Amino acid sequence: MTMKRHFDEDLQILRDELLRMGGLCEEMLRQAIELLVKREESLLGRVKASEERVNQLHIDIDEHVLRLIALHQPAAGDLRLLAAALKINSDLERIGDQAVNIAESSMYLRRQPRLKLGDIPRMVELASDMVRESLDAFARCDVELAQKVIAKDDEEDRLKSQTFNELLHLMQSDSSTIQRGMDIILIARNLERIADHATNIAEDVVFMVMGKDIRHGAGQGPAEPEPGPAGPEQAEPPAPLP
Amino acid sequence: MTMKRHFDEDLQILRDELLRMGGLCEEMLRQAIELLVKREESLLGRVKASEERVNQLHIDIDEHVLRLIALHQPAAGDLRLLAAALKINSDLERIGDQAVNIAESSMYLRRQPRLKLGDIPRMVELASDMVRESLDAFARCDVELAQKVIAKDDEEDRLKSQTFNELLHLMQSDSSTIQRGMDIILIARNLERIADHATNIAEDVVFMVMGKDIRHGAGQGPAEPEPGPAGPEQAEPPAPLP
Repeated sequence: MTMKRHFDEDLQILRDELLRMGGLCEEMLRQAIELLVKREESLLGRVKASEERVNQLHIDIDEHVLRLIALHQPAAGDLRLLAAALKINSDLERIGDQAVNIAESSMYLRRQPRLKLGDIPRMVELASDMVRESLDAFARCDVELAQKVIAKDDEEDRLKSQTFNELLHLMQSDSSTIQRGMDIILIARNLERIADHATNIAEDVVFMVMGKDIRHGAGQGPAEPEPGPAGPEQAEPPAPLP
Repeated sequence: MTMKRHFDEDLQILRDELLRMGGLCEEMLRQAIELLVKREESLLGRVKASEERVNQLHIDIDEHVLRLIALHQPAAGDLRLLAAALKINSDLERIGDQAVNIAESSMYLRRQPRLKLGDIPRMVELASDMVRESLDAFARCDVELAQKVIAKDDEEDRLKSQTFNELLHLMQSDSSTIQRGMDIILIARNLERIADHATNIAEDVVFMVMGKDIRHGAGQGPAEPEPGPAGPEQAEPPAPLP
């Protein structure tokens, strides 16, 4: 087998690992919210078990990326893909951490009288969509989908502020709800941060495909794929999944 | 000039850029806390101005790292240094974001009657120390200092919990303090996250020097520098700053 074919196969394995890790993170979020809503204690163990798998993938993927860079000395699009993989790996691991935080707050809340959850259910749905779509965009090198994910982040922020204000009002009118209200506000923050990580992933996808940094409002306007900073050797973006 | 000497000089420039970015982040944190304590509105503009410089460095450093990998095709210690630089860059940018969050909460609080700040001043001091020391550890390839930073994270968590409980108590006994109390709790969270980012940086330093992943409790026990996953070509850790 040629080195190039080896490399393409290795990249495919790496992409699969990241997608598996993303799937686990989505599952953790789903389980954490089920714990919040249905109050089944056993779900905490499942979240923690998924966390261990996510943490192992986090270590494995970093090692995998460094090995690929050292062995294949990639340039341009392939190098941007590997740099994106390193960053997406960190963002996914932190999404997992946020799900654990939600599960832990939910363990406290399950022993308390129920309090309204504001826009939390809608925030969960949106954050899950953003995580899944950002990884789809990564797998398919789909800049348009990545841009859609980035556009959704404002809606998540709006829902978080709305939840904040609603709960603050409740806490002010009934002091017995203060501790619970605070826990729900912190869960809204956790969800907002999951959406932020999905946005980071989507921005990394745009950079990977276009060779253009769109973070911090840079690189606005219509963009054409270009060689980017990693060298002029290959102008092509990395190949999408078959 | 030889390629190798070019590379060493480029690495030095990269390290300097990261240290400059770290210095700006520390300054942002200092300004944000001064805004909280002294209530000088003009400090918000200074925090935002520093944020713009941090954001530009964030983009520049990523580009710089990719260019170095593409041009010099590093392996082992040098490759781990460049991977660490990519991650440290992300962590620093997020530390800057947290400082902006603190400044924005402080803008609300400055129009309100003063509320006690719990252990916030001690948390600020500890978080600043952790950021500075994690970058010193990076510049000097100092594993021992990195381990000290990691050990400090528990103390920051303890101070955050203490601040939470103290403010929660206050909010429950006087409902006029709820909104302010919540803002101060969120600031304590921001500080905890800054300490988490410094811990991430310190863990990256250990990996960079030792070729050993100590995240998620992996790689415990006495460790010797080893070639790591990036290939057996060079067993040496990257050279410290002169």
